[in-house]
Amino acid sequence: METDSVKLLIVRASPYAMRAILALEAKGVKYELIEENLSAKSQLLLESNPVYKKIPVLLHGGKAIPESLFIVLYVDEAWPERAAFFPKDPYARAMTHFWGDFIDKKIFQLAVSTMKTKKGDPKNEPGVSELYENFLTLESGFTQLDAKPFFNRWQLGCVFKNEEEVEIRYRIDRRPAAGGW
Amino acid sequence: METDSVKLLIVRASPYAMRAILALEAKGVKYELIEENLSAKSQLLLESNPVYKKIPVLLHGGKAIPESLFIVLYVDEAWPERAAFFPKDPYARAMTHFWGDFIDKKIFQLAVSTMKTKKGDPKNEPGVSELYENFLTLESGFTQLDAKPFFNRWQLGCVFKNEEEVEIRYRIDRRPAAGGW
Repeated sequence: METDSVKLLIVRASPYAMRAILALEAKGVKYELIEENLSAKSQLLLESNPVYKKIPVLLHGGKAIPESLFIVLYVDEAWPERAAFFPKDPYARAMTHFWGDFIDKKIFQLAVSTMKTKKGDPKNEPGVSELYENFLTLESGFTQLDAKPFFNRWQLGCVFKNEEEVEIRYRIDRRPAAGGW
Repeated sequence: METDSVKLLIVRASPYAMRAILALEAKGVKYELIEENLSAKSQLLLESNPVYKKIPVLLHGGKAIPESLFIVLYVDEAWPERAAFFPKDPYARAMTHFWGDFIDKKIFQLAVSTMKTKKGDPKNEPGVSELYENFLTLESGFTQLDAKPFFNRWQLGCVFKNEEEVEIRYRIDRRPAAGGW
């Protein structure tokens, strides 16, 4: 049915968009990607996310769900047939939300601003160092948490698809546990 | 059992702490409040929320859950006997998370900074106006959403327990729908 079609408003470089895509892929949901031009936002984007006017937005059966973390939640529960993204234990569930939020605040946001500086630019270094520290924090959280994080290595990788890719990857790849994510 | 005791690290003026208290009260959970001094944080706070070192933190059965939104989630699922905070429908659930996050970003944070200015101070006005606009946005969200928000009027009220209380309350009380929250 047309009303049950799944569409995802994205821009290609966004780690938030990638998180939403991964959720749909993991559940085997058929979807259509609609690429937005952020300097000329479509009427569809403005109407489907009037609060923030940002991508990603998931459109499903006449409903619009903005914000990648809430898209992950929605996809998990709207297609329950496939393996759940969240563990069953209340503590592990709450902490999975906690680390998802940490990734937004302390990794994605910082990665996006760090990406805007060039390698060798002194302004680049503090961001890269802090990003690395935040990955260590995230890693310690995952080690403690008896739950599989709802993103995978590919998604982490996508944060770094930019000119600085090599350097940042190196710093992360020094951590052996990161390979297991 | 001692290991199942419930403790909540708070400071009194915090709307985030109040949200966690409300969740425990709504579920009829017995708890002990531990007041923190943010200028001399306790070892307990530093150890139970090493990532942000902020209140509130819920301690239950040897586990520590930081951040009020995740405390609400945890309390809802750890004490499932009483009425659930979240609706069952996946869309309504995702949007309840969305609006909880909106309250954090667009109301609590702004309210805290606005509270620090005095009535009549020109720096106070933009914050109050923006806060008012954000309440209208929140209200439109609640009107569309077929779900009860997991906070109540008292909690909204607590945002405004400060010198400017009268003025901000007036602006909110002009909205008839706000009384129904």
